[in-house]
Amino acid sequence: MSEKLNFASDYMEGAHPALLQRLAECNTVKSVGYGLDAFSEAAREKIRTACEAPGADIFFLAGGTQTNAAVISTMLRPWQGVISAASGHISTHEAGAIEAGGHKVLALAHVDGKLCAEEILRCFRSWQEDGNRDHLVMPGMVYLSQPTEYGTLYSLAELEAISWVCHENNLLLYVDGARLAYALACPENDVSLSDLARLCDAFYIGGTKCGALFGEAVVLPKHDTIPHFFTLIKQQGALLAKGFVTGLQFDTLFTDELYLRIGKNAIETADMLRRALIERGYVLPIASPTNQLFVSLPDDKLQELSEQVIMAYVEKLDETHTLMRFCTSWATEPEDVAALIQLL
Amino acid sequence: MSEKLNFASDYMEGAHPALLQRLAECNTVKSVGYGLDAFSEAAREKIRTACEAPGADIFFLAGGTQTNAAVISTMLRPWQGVISAASGHISTHEAGAIEAGGHKVLALAHVDGKLCAEEILRCFRSWQEDGNRDHLVMPGMVYLSQPTEYGTLYSLAELEAISWVCHENNLLLYVDGARLAYALACPENDVSLSDLARLCDAFYIGGTKCGALFGEAVVLPKHDTIPHFFTLIKQQGALLAKGFVTGLQFDTLFTDELYLRIGKNAIETADMLRRALIERGYVLPIASPTNQLFVSLPDDKLQELSEQVIMAYVEKLDETHTLMRFCTSWATEPEDVAALIQLL
Amino acid sequence: MSEKLNFASDYMEGAHPALLQRLAECNTVKSVGYGLDAFSEAAREKIRTACEAPGADIFFLAGGTQTNAAVISTMLRPWQGVISAASGHISTHEAGAIEAGGHKVLALAHVDGKLCAEEILRCFRSWQEDGNRDHLVMPGMVYLSQPTEYGTLYSLAELEAISWVCHENNLLLYVDGARLAYALACPENDVSLSDLARLCDAFYIGGTKCGALFGEAVVLPKHDTIPHFFTLIKQQGALLAKGFVTGLQFDTLFTDELYLRIGKNAIETADMLRRALIERGYVLPIASPTNQLFVSLPDDKLQELSEQVIMAYVEKLDETHTLMRFCTSWATEPEDVAALIQLL
Amino acid sequence: MSEKLNFASDYMEGAHPALLQRLAECNTVKSVGYGLDAFSEAAREKIRTACEAPGADIFFLAGGTQTNAAVISTMLRPWQGVISAASGHISTHEAGAIEAGGHKVLALAHVDGKLCAEEILRCFRSWQEDGNRDHLVMPGMVYLSQPTEYGTLYSLAELEAISWVCHENNLLLYVDGARLAYALACPENDVSLSDLARLCDAFYIGGTKCGALFGEAVVLPKHDTIPHFFTLIKQQGALLAKGFVTGLQFDTLFTDELYLRIGKNAIETADMLRRALIERGYVLPIASPTNQLFVSLPDDKLQELSEQVIMAYVEKLDETHTLMRFCTSWATEPEDVAALIQLL
Repeated sequence: MSEKLNFASDYMEGAHPALLQRLAECNTVKSVGYGLDAFSEAAREKIRTACEAPGADIFFLAGGTQTNAAVISTMLRPWQGVISAASGHISTHEAGAIEAGGHKVLALAHVDGKLCAEEILRCFRSWQEDGNRDHLVMPGMVYLSQPTEYGTLYSLAELEAISWVCHENNLLLYVDGARLAYALACPENDVSLSDLARLCDAFYIGGTKCGALFGEAVVLPKHDTIPHFFTLIKQQGALLAKGFVTGLQFDTLFTDELYLRIGKNAIETADMLRRALIERGYVLPIASPTNQLFVSLPDDKLQELSEQVIMAYVEKLDETHTLMRFCTSWATEPEDVAALIQLL
Repeated sequence: MSEKLNFASDYMEGAHPALLQRLAECNTVKSVGYGLDAFSEAAREKIRTACEAPGADIFFLAGGTQTNAAVISTMLRPWQGVISAASGHISTHEAGAIEAGGHKVLALAHVDGKLCAEEILRCFRSWQEDGNRDHLVMPGMVYLSQPTEYGTLYSLAELEAISWVCHENNLLLYVDGARLAYALACPENDVSLSDLARLCDAFYIGGTKCGALFGEAVVLPKHDTIPHFFTLIKQQGALLAKGFVTGLQFDTLFTDELYLRIGKNAIETADMLRRALIERGYVLPIASPTNQLFVSLPDDKLQELSEQVIMAYVEKLDETHTLMRFCTSWATEPEDVAALIQLL
Repeated sequence: MSEKLNFASDYMEGAHPALLQRLAECNTVKSVGYGLDAFSEAAREKIRTACEAPGADIFFLAGGTQTNAAVISTMLRPWQGVISAASGHISTHEAGAIEAGGHKVLALAHVDGKLCAEEILRCFRSWQEDGNRDHLVMPGMVYLSQPTEYGTLYSLAELEAISWVCHENNLLLYVDGARLAYALACPENDVSLSDLARLCDAFYIGGTKCGALFGEAVVLPKHDTIPHFFTLIKQQGALLAKGFVTGLQFDTLFTDELYLRIGKNAIETADMLRRALIERGYVLPIASPTNQLFVSLPDDKLQELSEQVIMAYVEKLDETHTLMRFCTSWATEPEDVAALIQLL
Repeated sequence: MSEKLNFASDYMEGAHPALLQRLAECNTVKSVGYGLDAFSEAAREKIRTACEAPGADIFFLAGGTQTNAAVISTMLRPWQGVISAASGHISTHEAGAIEAGGHKVLALAHVDGKLCAEEILRCFRSWQEDGNRDHLVMPGMVYLSQPTEYGTLYSLAELEAISWVCHENNLLLYVDGARLAYALACPENDVSLSDLARLCDAFYIGGTKCGALFGEAVVLPKHDTIPHFFTLIKQQGALLAKGFVTGLQFDTLFTDELYLRIGKNAIETADMLRRALIERGYVLPIASPTNQLFVSLPDDKLQELSEQVIMAYVEKLDETHTLMRFCTSWATEPEDVAALIQLL
C-alpha cells in the first residue's frame, strides 16, 4: 500500500491471475477434506508427470518453514541431525523450528549460500571416524535450497556430486524449493524437476513465492518414504481441512507448464536491473543469476534511494557500505524496474 | 464433484463470495509479509471492536489443529496439562498434536460434548489435594469448543461458571471457535464475542469452517498474554509469509458484521432438516441447536440413503442402528435440504 | 530417621549388604565408562542366562521413570501412543514424562491394576476400524507392570494372551519390572524371567526397589530392537559415566540367583502382616499377593496408628474409611512386623 | 581391569573412601524418597554455607548431561537458545540433548575452551540489532564450564565480565562444574564457590568426576529460580527414588571441606606429569593448569606408549602428530605417574 517502488520480496502480491480465476470457477464445488479431493489428486498426477516420477507421494502444505520442519523432523531419526549451509533458511530464519522438533542443525561453511560435496563428506567422515561418535549427533540428512537464500544455483554436476556422497553414506538429501520456479526459469539453470526427483529423497516445489496465494508441494519420489506422513502432518498442524485450495492452485500451476514459465518475468526484470546496476558501477558481491540481487550500496546512496524505494536490508558491510537485496517476482512490472533504474 | 447430495461437512466449498471478490480486488497490492500488513491490521482493529477488547492481541493462523497446538503449547508451562472433554477435538482427532508438543490432555467426562464447572473443579481439587501432586501433571488450562464437536452450546451462565472456577484456581480458559459463526447465528445462543473476550484468556474465531478459504483468528484479550508469540508461531511453522491473505479474509468477514450473519443460512437449513427428521420419527440423541445434526439411522435406511446422500459416520449405536451426522453451512442450498427431506 | 515403625515404601534403605560389599571390594578397579566395562558385561551375560535370552541387548539405567521414558519414547514411532492401565505408573505418577516425550498414553480401564487382552484388543480394533483413524493416535505399544502398582500379578496365561494380541496386531509389549523381584519370590507367581524374555519386546528388571542403591536393567530380548539406543539414552541424560556402578550391582544381584531370592523376605513379612490384618477383621479391597498391602482403615484407627506407624496414603474411600498401603521389602525386619501387628 | 597404566579419564574408580564408608554406616536407616530426606537436607545446608548462599535451592541429579539438559531446558523459554563455546560439552558430546529438548545451541568461537565477554556481547547484539530478529532464535543463556573441557580456568575477572554482560542483557548464566573440585584445588584458580553463587543464575557442583559414585548438585542461588523444578526433573526421569544416596554423598563431600581438598591429589599428580612432559620437550598446545593435560605426541611415540598406557584420543594434529589427553583424579596413585614418566 506504499507509493514507493517496492522490491522488498517475492511474496508481496496475491496469486497469479490464472489461480485466482480457477479458485473462483470452482468455488462452489463440494470436495472432501484433507487433500483427498479430486483437484489435489489431479495436481499430484500432473506433478508426477512433470517430475517423471510416477510413483511419487505428493503432499500440499501451507508454507516453507512448516514444510521444512515437517519433512526434516519425520525423515530424521531421533539420534540424527541435518547438515545445512550456515546460511540455510533452517539454520537462520526459522526461529529454531528444527531444534524445536528435536534435531540439531549441523551448519557448514558455504560459498554464496552453497554447500559442496567435499565439505559434506568431510563432515560425515569426521563423525564416522570419531571414537566418541556414539556421544555425538549423527549426520542423517543434507538440506539445501535451490535457488539458495543468496539467489545462487546448484549446477546439475554439483547436485549429482552431493547426491552421490549422500547415497554412499546413507545421508538423505532434501531440497528446499521455496523459489524453485525462479531456478527453472533461469537460463543458467540445468537442473530439471526430474533431476530433482532422481537425485533427492525429498524436495518441495514452492508455491507461496512462485504465484500461489500460499502452499508448497512436497515431492517424495519413492512411495512411502515417510510412513504415516498424513498423520504426522496432521499432528504438526500442517494438514489443511480445505486441502483442495492448495490442490486447485497446484493443479493450475502444473497445467500447460505454467510453473515452468511463471518465473520468467522475474528473471527478465532481474536481468534488466542487474545490467543497469553493473553499468552504473555498483558492486554485486554475490553472483546471483536468479530473482534476488545483492548490492553493496554506499550509505548516502542508500539513504537517498530509501526515500523512494523499498529494498531488504541484509547486513552492514563496512563503515560506509550496506548490503541490500532487490527482489523481483512473477508480478514485477517492467515499468517499476525502469523507474528504479532511473533512480540508481 | 459427486452428484450425490452432500452433507458431509461444513468445509466442502471455497470461500464466501465477498471474500473471493476482495482477494481478487486487492490481488496486485504489494504488502509486507508475516501479517504485519495493513489488511491484517485493519482486520485486527475490527475484531477488537467486535469483541469490545481494545487491547487484544490478534494473530491469524491457517487451521484449527495448528491453532490449538500453538495456543496450548505456548500458554501451558512444561509441568502442566490441559483439561478437555473426552470428546474434545484436541483429545481425539488431532493425531496427538498436544502430546507431541509435550503436554498431557486431561480428558474429563462430558454431556453431549460439554464440560461443566463442577467437574473441572473436581479435577483440579483432586490434583491439589493429592499428597503426591508434585509427581502428577498439574492442570493448567481448560479447553472447550463453542459450539462443541456435537453441535451443542455453552450458555452464558455455564461459561461464566467455568470461567469463575478457572480464574479462582489459576487455570487458563481457552475456547476453540472453529465453528463459532454457527453459534453466533443460533437463536439459542446467548454468548457474544465480547463475552468470550471477557471470560477467556484466549479463543479463536474460526474462518475455515465459516466462510474463509482457510484461516483462524486467535484473540488474546489481554495484551502480551503469550510473550514472543510471533516468534513461536514462526517456530511452529504457523506463520504465513503472505499473512495478508488471511488478514484480507478476516477484514472482509468483520466488515458490516458479515461474520455475525454468515452462519444464518446454516442454522436455517439445519432447522428445516431437524424438523423434518423429528416429524418422520427419527431419533436425534444429541440436542444440537447448531449446524450439525446427529441422527440414529436404522441400518437399512442408512444403506438406502447412502446411495444418494453423503453424510458422516459417527459410531455404531447397536446391532441395527448407526449414528450419522448431517452438516449444513453458509453454503448449503435450501433446495438440497428439500431434496434430502424427500428421501427421508 | 524416624522412631516410628516405617512401612511407607520399599525404597527406604540403601543396598543389600552383598552389593555394598562388592562396591567396596572393587572400588579402586579402573574401568572404562558408559557401561562398556567388564563388570557391566559380566552382569549382562548373567542376565542373558537367567532370561534364557542369549541374544538380548541389556542396558543399565538409573531409575524407573527414566527407564520407562527412554524405552517408550524410542520404541514408539511419532504417530503412535502407548496403551496403559489408567492406574499405570506412566499414566499417573511420572509427571507427564511420556507426553513430554511426545506420545499419548492411551489409558484403559483395569481390574486391580491389571489390563486384560480383550480390552487391549478392543482398543486396537476401535482405532483400526475408525474411518478417521489417520487423524487419531495409533496404538503402538502395551505397557504393563509386573507386579502392578496395586501389588497384583499377571498369570502366565494372562500374559500369554496379552502377548498374543500384541504380536497379532503389531503392538509392542513392554513390562515395567520396578518390583519384579517381589513377583519372582511370590508363590502365586508363575511368570519367570525367561517367560518375560519370550513374551515381551522389552522389559526391565528393577534394582532400586529390589536391593540396589539405584539402577534398572532394560532387557531387549531381540538384538538391535532399538537402533542407536546407546546414543539415545545419552541424549536423554540417562547414560551414567560410571556405568560400572550399576553393572557391579546387577552382577552381584545375578550371582548365585540373589535376585530370585532377594524378595523372599518381603513376601514372608507381607504374609505375616496380611494374615494378622485379616484375622483382626480388616478389609483388604485388593487381593495383592506381593509386598504391597492395601487396607481400608477406619479413620479413628488410622489416626491412632499414625502416631506410631508410617504408611502410605492412597485415597479416601468414604466418610469414615481411608485406603492405606503397607509396604515390605528385602530389608524389612520381622520384629517390626510383629510390633506393627501388636498395634493393629 | 587393565594391567596398563590408565590415565584415560577421571571417572574410572568408585567413590572416595569416606563416601563409601558413610553409605555403609547409614545403609539401614530408613529415609523418605525423592531427596526429601534428612541426609539430603543436611547436604543442602552445608552447600548453602560453602557457597554463602543461604537462600539457594539445591537439587541432586545423577549425571552431567542429565543436569545440563534439565537446567537448560527448564530455564530457557521456548523461543530462546543457549550460547556455548563450540567446544562446550553441550555442543559436542551430549548427543544433541539440548536440541532434543527443543533448544538451539548457539556455538561461539573459543580460545582453549573459553568464551569471552566481548564475543558473548557481540552475539547478543547481533540478534538484538537484526531487523529480522523475531524470526531468529533469541540468545537466552550463556553456558560455560569451569574448568573447561580443555582443562582451562576462567579467572574471577573474566567470569565477572561475563556475568556483567549477561545480567545487562537478560542472559542467564549457567556454569557446568562437572570437574569443579579440580578448579577449586588448583593454585591458579581465584573463583570460589561463593563467587559462582554470586555471579551465576545456576551452576552445578560435580560429584561423578570428583569422588562420588555418581551425582551432581545443582545450585540455584536465588530461591524459586526454576518454578516446579522438582516436578520437571521427575518428568525428565532425573528424580532418584533413593535421593538419599546422592544426599549422603554430598553431605560427606561437604563435611570438613572434603570437596575443597578432594582435587588436590589430581592437581599435584598432573603437575608432576606436566613438568616431566615439558622437560622432555613435549608440546602441550593448551595451557591447562588443572587435571587434564593435552599433549601433542609424535605418532611413533604414541604407538610405543599405547602398549603400556591408556590415554584418551582427542584429534589428529597433522600427518605425524596426534593430540592425546592424560587425566589425573582424586584417585591417581603417584607411583603410576612416576611409572608413566619413566616411559615418556
